[in-house]
Amino acid sequence: MPFTEETRAKFAAVSTATLTTVLLKRGFRNVFISDLKLINPGAPRLVGPAYTLRYIPSREDLDHPGVFEDRGHPQRRAVEECPPGHVLVIDSRKDHRAASAGGILVARMYKRGVAGIVSDGGFRDSPDIAELPFPVYHVAPAAPTNLIRHHAMDLNVPIGCGDVPVYPGDIVVGDGEGVVIVPGEIAEAVADEAFEQTVFEDFVQEQVMGGRGIFGIYPPGPEAKAEFAAWRAARGR
Amino acid sequence: MPFTEETRAKFAAVSTATLTTVLLKRGFRNVFISDLKLINPGAPRLVGPAYTLRYIPSREDLDHPGVFEDRGHPQRRAVEECPPGHVLVIDSRKDHRAASAGGILVARMYKRGVAGIVSDGGFRDSPDIAELPFPVYHVAPAAPTNLIRHHAMDLNVPIGCGDVPVYPGDIVVGDGEGVVIVPGEIAEAVADEAFEQTVFEDFVQEQVMGGRGIFGIYPPGPEAKAEFAAWRAARGR
Amino acid sequence: MPFTEETRAKFAAVSTATLTTVLLKRGFRNVFISDLKLINPGAPRLVGPAYTLRYIPSREDLDHPGVFEDRGHPQRRAVEECPPGHVLVIDSRKDHRAASAGGILVARMYKRGVAGIVSDGGFRDSPDIAELPFPVYHVAPAAPTNLIRHHAMDLNVPIGCGDVPVYPGDIVVGDGEGVVIVPGEIAEAVADEAFEQTVFEDFVQEQVMGGRGIFGIYPPGPEAKAEFAAWRAARGR
Amino acid sequence: MPFTEETRAKFAAVSTATLTTVLLKRGFRNVFISDLKLINPGAPRLVGPAYTLRYIPSREDLDHPGVFEDRGHPQRRAVEECPPGHVLVIDSRKDHRAASAGGILVARMYKRGVAGIVSDGGFRDSPDIAELPFPVYHVAPAAPTNLIRHHAMDLNVPIGCGDVPVYPGDIVVGDGEGVVIVPGEIAEAVADEAFEQTVFEDFVQEQVMGGRGIFGIYPPGPEAKAEFAAWRAARGR
Amino acid sequence: MPFTEETRAKFAAVSTATLTTVLLKRGFRNVFISDLKLINPGAPRLVGPAYTLRYIPSREDLDHPGVFEDRGHPQRRAVEECPPGHVLVIDSRKDHRAASAGGILVARMYKRGVAGIVSDGGFRDSPDIAELPFPVYHVAPAAPTNLIRHHAMDLNVPIGCGDVPVYPGDIVVGDGEGVVIVPGEIAEAVADEAFEQTVFEDFVQEQVMGGRGIFGIYPPGPEAKAEFAAWRAARGR
Amino acid sequence: MPFTEETRAKFAAVSTATLTTVLLKRGFRNVFISDLKLINPGAPRLVGPAYTLRYIPSREDLDHPGVFEDRGHPQRRAVEECPPGHVLVIDSRKDHRAASAGGILVARMYKRGVAGIVSDGGFRDSPDIAELPFPVYHVAPAAPTNLIRHHAMDLNVPIGCGDVPVYPGDIVVGDGEGVVIVPGEIAEAVADEAFEQTVFEDFVQEQVMGGRGIFGIYPPGPEAKAEFAAWRAARGR
Repeated sequence: MPFTEETRAKFAAVSTATLTTVLLKRGFRNVFISDLKLINPGAPRLVGPAYTLRYIPSREDLDHPGVFEDRGHPQRRAVEECPPGHVLVIDSRKDHRAASAGGILVARMYKRGVAGIVSDGGFRDSPDIAELPFPVYHVAPAAPTNLIRHHAMDLNVPIGCGDVPVYPGDIVVGDGEGVVIVPGEIAEAVADEAFEQTVFEDFVQEQVMGGRGIFGIYPPGPEAKAEFAAWRAARGR
Repeated sequence: MPFTEETRAKFAAVSTATLTTVLLKRGFRNVFISDLKLINPGAPRLVGPAYTLRYIPSREDLDHPGVFEDRGHPQRRAVEECPPGHVLVIDSRKDHRAASAGGILVARMYKRGVAGIVSDGGFRDSPDIAELPFPVYHVAPAAPTNLIRHHAMDLNVPIGCGDVPVYPGDIVVGDGEGVVIVPGEIAEAVADEAFEQTVFEDFVQEQVMGGRGIFGIYPPGPEAKAEFAAWRAARGR
Repeated sequence: MPFTEETRAKFAAVSTATLTTVLLKRGFRNVFISDLKLINPGAPRLVGPAYTLRYIPSREDLDHPGVFEDRGHPQRRAVEECPPGHVLVIDSRKDHRAASAGGILVARMYKRGVAGIVSDGGFRDSPDIAELPFPVYHVAPAAPTNLIRHHAMDLNVPIGCGDVPVYPGDIVVGDGEGVVIVPGEIAEAVADEAFEQTVFEDFVQEQVMGGRGIFGIYPPGPEAKAEFAAWRAARGR
Repeated sequence: MPFTEETRAKFAAVSTATLTTVLLKRGFRNVFISDLKLINPGAPRLVGPAYTLRYIPSREDLDHPGVFEDRGHPQRRAVEECPPGHVLVIDSRKDHRAASAGGILVARMYKRGVAGIVSDGGFRDSPDIAELPFPVYHVAPAAPTNLIRHHAMDLNVPIGCGDVPVYPGDIVVGDGEGVVIVPGEIAEAVADEAFEQTVFEDFVQEQVMGGRGIFGIYPPGPEAKAEFAAWRAARGR
Repeated sequence: MPFTEETRAKFAAVSTATLTTVLLKRGFRNVFISDLKLINPGAPRLVGPAYTLRYIPSREDLDHPGVFEDRGHPQRRAVEECPPGHVLVIDSRKDHRAASAGGILVARMYKRGVAGIVSDGGFRDSPDIAELPFPVYHVAPAAPTNLIRHHAMDLNVPIGCGDVPVYPGDIVVGDGEGVVIVPGEIAEAVADEAFEQTVFEDFVQEQVMGGRGIFGIYPPGPEAKAEFAAWRAARGR
Repeated sequence: MPFTEETRAKFAAVSTATLTTVLLKRGFRNVFISDLKLINPGAPRLVGPAYTLRYIPSREDLDHPGVFEDRGHPQRRAVEECPPGHVLVIDSRKDHRAASAGGILVARMYKRGVAGIVSDGGFRDSPDIAELPFPVYHVAPAAPTNLIRHHAMDLNVPIGCGDVPVYPGDIVVGDGEGVVIVPGEIAEAVADEAFEQTVFEDFVQEQVMGGRGIFGIYPPGPEAKAEFAAWRAARGR
């Protein structure tokens, strides 16, 4: 299913919290990657199809600085091949004792138009990464170079990231709270429903901030549903 | 024992660090909830009697979105019934893989005059919560909806929160460092002693920042005690 | 080997990430202390030789508030004896349930010209510490007073800090990412090599931000090496 | 729904593994308490309705050896009041640093005809408990007396045990692998289905041990179903 | 390099401890999978080339009981295709909250002549597995069925198992202590050296049990080396 | 205070559980090392004064196989110098990813008359150690050689072992449950009191196994005290 700009815009307008609710209604309970931090809180919202990189533990004889001479090295290929508008999602086996990547590679992906990066490990040069207007999520800074713990194995295979399954083409959405993985097959429908849900929650939030209680409105009874319809019509949303 | 405004003001003027020292002198070693973060660092200080909510793990047949239709649902009752000036303390069993509550419920408690919220789990909509001038403490953001992990069981029973015992009516005090639970029976005396201790520490801090060493003053010898008395008198504290 | 101002300046100009790469080339894989946070992100860079303090678990009969009357207490001696320009590194056994030290002691070390403090536990009064232009690293705030968990045992013996070996005189370098321990014997050579590596990475970063790909430049082929030589000459670096 | 001897016998004849499969088919994913060990591997199978005890963290002033003088102390009441044939399930908040109970109390429950005990903490006097023909499950031995960490709060309320919800009257089933909680409302149906499933798996196991491959039989195709029917009829099961 | 019966026999005669020493001398520091338990302590020694199975986290729509109807399901293929004499090594992402496999599949692999099974998760039906004369290693029993956490993704690709890299064809050796992964390329040389080292350690152990001190013999000085040569000659080893 | 054979015998006759109760009455809450396993369950009881060994994390340049040539190496000195009748207690920083020691060194200590060994890490050659009639406690088997993680630093200094303080000369007592550290200064009094307490608990256990309830006897009322006195007199204990 093509990932349209309209769908991208809807995902960028809804929260990861709302997405988890919409996905639960469809039976998905394990979609939020816990314990991630957004390195640059001022970055634009993260939205895009997943392009994956799988790490396994490194081995001293195979993982030495010389490996980066090889243009076929999967980490370096990921940096140059992850399509613009996509999100690089890295399976670092929840190990942030060495870096998933560093500032130069991140900068290159930013310049290439990649939509953002997510790892369940850590990035090095995180202070530099924090300067880019580019959403990068990790668990904690990790100065040690990649090779100390990680061996880049595969590109664009299904992976786990922070205990959540990620299939290439799944839609990755991040906000100030963290990252949700939306199965690619249902992304458009989920975006639509989440967008609708967000309009309603904006209405409720406005009511609550105006002093109203939650009973009868959250969840809404018939009266609140009518009020919401009127509110929405008045605002053209 | 009534919780007076004077006692509240004293707690708001002392640090959680000082409170742990005062409590240790009375034999209490386990009063600080570790690993909490204050979502909005710009919020006012957290002080108030504890009102508790106990979660147990959720079960698929009992915990579905329909449960919130019931006005007797303990989470929703907590939101509407936690008395103004009190602090809602939630036993989330140190599990932040799903939310203890979300932005709309938090906003409602803020509007109702609740003093703040503490959970040893996580909140969803944390970026929205960060906009409110309202102290909310948790372990990490948790976008997934409550029902995925938590079942609201009881209101206002003694609980554990982050391995610390919390009895209804205990005084909850938070600052930029975290949250301390003061047994309700001794709250006034603890507030008084901590307030006194703070005046002394302000004196020491001023001396140290002026270049003085710690020996003889921290802890104070007879000479430093006299100096402190004079310093205090001069400032009318 | 004397620790010169020139070496200090070089360390202050390179990142902890670059240092881990230089150290890996010399066979050192375990030099970065993971999971540390810098309390005051606005503090100057941390550089200096290690002066160590070893804690063991406290015991109720030995560790009571009265111990601080003793000027020979190792924690208090550390505060007054850690040489100016050195870094106090504390082995807190990765336990941040009680404080490694508090605001007054930290302020005293700052005033005495100590270069900074690192603990694999936590500090209390962390909001006050955040006000000082002084680099202090820990795992998480810890309001409970020291005695609840820690007994100060030794000064300036080799220790572990966050699973990394630290020998007195090793060079401690911190940035926004965390802290690296450089074996003292090779500190000057490491500083030199890291400084050179940094110039090259600045060149690469500039190229990448200008839109260039990483192949052929990172790592550099013969052409990129020539370009870099010219770039460097032009900038007098 | 009454818990019949027939249902008890069926539960005693099926494995916890089979029960998790039957429960998954009904939508229950979180029914097995991980990381438990059976103290006496030679004990009879554990089956019985849950009777619960809830601990919260202890507090130094409330939890001292004198509390056991009080016959209303919930831990002591649990020992004398847990009905024969029931299983005492203890919410120890996954903390095995102090005991959930000790050998004398366990012996008393054994003598009273309690069916067994489960805690997500630890028991003390575990070598003595290992001598009783009585199923007791915990995470690890815990010599320190209860009061150091635990305060007995409530009897027979819904609890969490090892992240699994446990309601009074749920059926607790244990084997050499661990403990499963079966919702009380569906216990009879689950026992029936698990019993049937076990007959089939006995058939498959016999076939596999005879050298047959798993395809076509596990899961069974039409032919294997017919073979199974014949096998079963021949054995009168 | 072919894996000969002679090499297999040597591996079966040396301990995992000795293998880690031999591998460290060749620069390999990360070869032992920690925290594994051997389910049947009476099983024969585990030795064989690795055949791998990679799991990722399961997803509710893709992982339901019906998937096992498909003979192409990677878990079921692993059971029928892992070559005799090989060891199935499973990447379960260190998650033992659901089973890596169960008793019937393990029995089938035993019957097919597989050399053994290793998972960094857990097996279900572990009491049945303990009855087979077949070496199976896991972290802890896991009754819940596979699908609750695991999705079988790939066969015979490089994986991580318990933070250790495992490449197809690496030699897997297990004893009562745990499991070591020997890189396939150097397996023969490692087996030879470990076998030699074991003869020497048998000599030392005999000396020590006879009352001799370790100095001069462990490590050996020139005199002990001569003694060892004589001891060895006398025994024809 | 000399450690007499009579005191040793009393410690060998009481459980670690009873010792924690006696120590709690004297204000000691942190005396039991959690998560230890006894490698040889058939070994004699562990009792003796602590002789300590402190490890720090290893460093690649300092910790290579050649270090064992040096007879001054603290690990090797510990093996030859730990006094007969004493217990070697090792601070392994709770890291069992590499061995605290191996079978040959353990055998040597056994032969030298050392009373036993305790580490909060792991031992290698644990299957061999399990053959010795010698009490050795650790967290889990650890095949990798010591040098990969540990550097032996000091002999007989105060240490932490599993978060418990251990001072040279403290009395170390182990049973099937784990290990307790008794401060040396009060060892004799603690042994006496624990011995008395054990006689009483034997009485209670006998009563309970005879069918009596716990109320009035555990803790004992006046009547039970009289009964106990008679019971004791009758048995000459």
